[in-house]
Amino acid sequence: MADPSTLTHPDPEGGVRMMDASQKSDSARTAVAAGRVHLGEEAFRRVREHDIEKGDVLTTAQIAGIMGAKQTDKLIPLCHDATINGVEVDFTFNEDEQAIDVRAFTKSFGVTGVEMEALTAVSVASLTIYDMCKSVTKDIRIGDVHLRAKTGGQSGNWKSKSEDTSPAES
Amino acid sequence: MADPSTLTHPDPEGGVRMMDASQKSDSARTAVAAGRVHLGEEAFRRVREHDIEKGDVLTTAQIAGIMGAKQTDKLIPLCHDATINGVEVDFTFNEDEQAIDVRAFTKSFGVTGVEMEALTAVSVASLTIYDMCKSVTKDIRIGDVHLRAKTGGQSGNWKSKSEDTSPAES
Amino acid sequence: MADPSTLTHPDPEGGVRMMDASQKSDSARTAVAAGRVHLGEEAFRRVREHDIEKGDVLTTAQIAGIMGAKQTDKLIPLCHDATINGVEVDFTFNEDEQAIDVRAFTKSFGVTGVEMEALTAVSVASLTIYDMCKSVTKDIRIGDVHLRAKTGGQSGNWKSKSEDTSPAES
Amino acid sequence: MADPSTLTHPDPEGGVRMMDASQKSDSARTAVAAGRVHLGEEAFRRVREHDIEKGDVLTTAQIAGIMGAKQTDKLIPLCHDATINGVEVDFTFNEDEQAIDVRAFTKSFGVTGVEMEALTAVSVASLTIYDMCKSVTKDIRIGDVHLRAKTGGQSGNWKSKSEDTSPAES
Amino acid sequence: MADPSTLTHPDPEGGVRMMDASQKSDSARTAVAAGRVHLGEEAFRRVREHDIEKGDVLTTAQIAGIMGAKQTDKLIPLCHDATINGVEVDFTFNEDEQAIDVRAFTKSFGVTGVEMEALTAVSVASLTIYDMCKSVTKDIRIGDVHLRAKTGGQSGNWKSKSEDTSPAES
Amino acid sequence: MADPSTLTHPDPEGGVRMMDASQKSDSARTAVAAGRVHLGEEAFRRVREHDIEKGDVLTTAQIAGIMGAKQTDKLIPLCHDATINGVEVDFTFNEDEQAIDVRAFTKSFGVTGVEMEALTAVSVASLTIYDMCKSVTKDIRIGDVHLRAKTGGQSGNWKSKSEDTSPAES
Repeated sequence: MADPSTLTHPDPEGGVRMMDASQKSDSARTAVAAGRVHLGEEAFRRVREHDIEKGDVLTTAQIAGIMGAKQTDKLIPLCHDATINGVEVDFTFNEDEQAIDVRAFTKSFGVTGVEMEALTAVSVASLTIYDMCKSVTKDIRIGDVHLRAKTGGQSGNWKSKSEDTSPAES
Repeated sequence: MADPSTLTHPDPEGGVRMMDASQKSDSARTAVAAGRVHLGEEAFRRVREHDIEKGDVLTTAQIAGIMGAKQTDKLIPLCHDATINGVEVDFTFNEDEQAIDVRAFTKSFGVTGVEMEALTAVSVASLTIYDMCKSVTKDIRIGDVHLRAKTGGQSGNWKSKSEDTSPAES
Repeated sequence: MADPSTLTHPDPEGGVRMMDASQKSDSARTAVAAGRVHLGEEAFRRVREHDIEKGDVLTTAQIAGIMGAKQTDKLIPLCHDATINGVEVDFTFNEDEQAIDVRAFTKSFGVTGVEMEALTAVSVASLTIYDMCKSVTKDIRIGDVHLRAKTGGQSGNWKSKSEDTSPAES
Repeated sequence: MADPSTLTHPDPEGGVRMMDASQKSDSARTAVAAGRVHLGEEAFRRVREHDIEKGDVLTTAQIAGIMGAKQTDKLIPLCHDATINGVEVDFTFNEDEQAIDVRAFTKSFGVTGVEMEALTAVSVASLTIYDMCKSVTKDIRIGDVHLRAKTGGQSGNWKSKSEDTSPAES
Repeated sequence: MADPSTLTHPDPEGGVRMMDASQKSDSARTAVAAGRVHLGEEAFRRVREHDIEKGDVLTTAQIAGIMGAKQTDKLIPLCHDATINGVEVDFTFNEDEQAIDVRAFTKSFGVTGVEMEALTAVSVASLTIYDMCKSVTKDIRIGDVHLRAKTGGQSGNWKSKSEDTSPAES
Repeated sequence: MADPSTLTHPDPEGGVRMMDASQKSDSARTAVAAGRVHLGEEAFRRVREHDIEKGDVLTTAQIAGIMGAKQTDKLIPLCHDATINGVEVDFTFNEDEQAIDVRAFTKSFGVTGVEMEALTAVSVASLTIYDMCKSVTKDIRIGDVHLRAKTGGQSGNWKSKSEDTSPAES
């Protein structure tokens, strides 16, 4: 086999690679991600009152988020396949913002983290809320999708600095 | 990060979760599932005589069952991804019932069982038989899809009581 | 291009084909399929009382069935991709049988029917009920998965003869 | 077949349905969605300077967004399968915000809109940017995912009121 | 590469797009693609004699090719989703070359062609032959995957010049 | 449970099986596969000059190859799911042949090899090059897709004899 180092990358700037994860060590890993779906007055009220024609918004979004987490490595080109041990997706009604706060928790044991799985769960759950409410209003915004905390892995534990003052937590 | 226990589940009854499997221990696991596709006289005869226009029914169903097993966690919302080490799908012509008895065997090593993979293999193989025979008759019924036995895992070995007297086995 | 008729099929018995649907005419099509999940006393009671640890069984099964219908042509090797216009999955508690009766309705407009989509929805919904109840009992059986009726298409309307006397309907 | 109206929905609040789209008329449809990925100083600079270890961030995100749009109906439970005629995903470097503004345009001809496809393209492209930059910083936020405009369909053309003053547009 | 900061499209050279197909007109379309799997003496003989441990090579490859065709737009980033009306995958034993000649035929009606679907069917069928024979030998080569002919669409009919003299046809 | 050996395979020749991999031992595994896409003069020149209307051919093909590798076990019926630790797809402009040489490298740790993943990456990357160039010419041929080397696993290391003299390497 030719020495890979002699191969010409036709476009060294354009090249992408799925990083080698085999040097990382197995460990328990968790991640928590969050986001917020701004619905406006009417859609917010109708979700809370179970008055959306397509059906139960939050259970549908919860299941979509969990199933979405399992598709993460198929959606994100350079993301590794993590064997997910557990996923939870929760919602909080945020009255002040007329928004639904979405939170996802993922857990695995292995060489790669589950941050992207948690973020994908939040995104897919949020898109599902959008889809179910879009006959009420199209003025819906999905905001502030971010990682709140992670544990395990080479880079150890991490916690978002903004969490203490996040309105979602108060 | 906020204490998860203080988060308000907006609808405690509606909430679903993909259970945390990380406390389970790795072990070899197998499962056998079975089902029966009632074809009626003409379709049964034609499957046996390789006289179905779409082609070889049982090989197609066998492959569909194996591939279906690998999609289990993408189809069943709260099912974990098991790393399948082997899948077999077998068929028996059941003359008395003018039916095809479908059996699937799955094997893995890991923290989660492969019962759902075996049951999914049986279901997808059975639906494939249906699909290939539906130009002959629409009076086809898929019945008695069940787990026959499993080994390994926290709950240990298990065997369906009805197996001894099941017509499929006599 | 060589005349296809002169090509040697190496194994004429083994050959499979996805039939040419292009001569069929566009029409509105619907299908209704049904099945029954025998749960036994405890699991039946607990599903009805929303007392299953994994969460809301029927909503999860409903969503799984709808999403499964959309995967039909990816699961069934020779099945065409139908553009589904609508899917409904319903459940009835069958007290006498301690079973859940599953019903799926599918609708499309195009050259191919949606019978397989309805049957797949029933099967995936039933497997999901199984998955969520399997910590209660493994003695669960999925039975009587069949087509109840279809409308539209070349072969016209069709209704299962057994429907009038089916216990699910009485 | 039983009159569907007499079927008992076991949980009328929990029921979900994929709405019947067959009464809608075929028409050309387009949608534009947008979002913003806040990267912070270092990751923003490195994306712009093509200095991310995993490779070319924006081309990868662009392709992920396009491919994600094609998966929309598999991710969002009650979303119909739209036959997409075209997808574009664009990026703008937003110096003031140290963010990348993501925009997706989708086009189809059929009975269902492509708003969800555009929003999914934006979300998956944004998650991909996140994934490629997360070794630089975990303080990345995906914000303001929303529909900017749509044309065609029963509800006609629609434009987000906020577009005129959005910094992304100025 | 252009300076990203000066453009709406940050990187016109690097940008990719899924071309707008909506101006194309609906028409019947077909495509034929071919390829050749060089197996070497032993594997060639064993495939022909049905003596491969994993099972029936050609039926498995045939089904894999058909199912692969249905995944084309999910595998090829900028490929449109064609509604496939029919797929056939055929094989010819090529004694001289100790190879299996693979041929796929695809058919659709719509705005986009099915050349990529036929080529994908050939590739996936060929990879499946490889997979089933790789315990016999690893010296297997998939060669000459190409389009032989297409009909329909804006660019009309087309036929590969080399077909007349291709050994596969003689 | 009945002794599996007494089950009648209705068609012993037609049966397929996903081999039991559980007796294999975990080990680091790598594979390198290669292929060549013959483009002809004009398409070759235009790929090199970034003058293809659909966009950046090689980056798109690279990402498609990486994502394709992650779909291998879903495409190849009897292939096991390998947990891929890393994938690289590289290209070399082959002036003499007016071709692009495609090379894929895959890495995993587990009981099954990653040869099929490397070959699938090459095939999907090659098909993507085809798709992006097919508006320039339809006379494109994908040739010589083969395994160049593998390491790890029960059968140990292996290297294709032809590599030393392959024009791709000279």
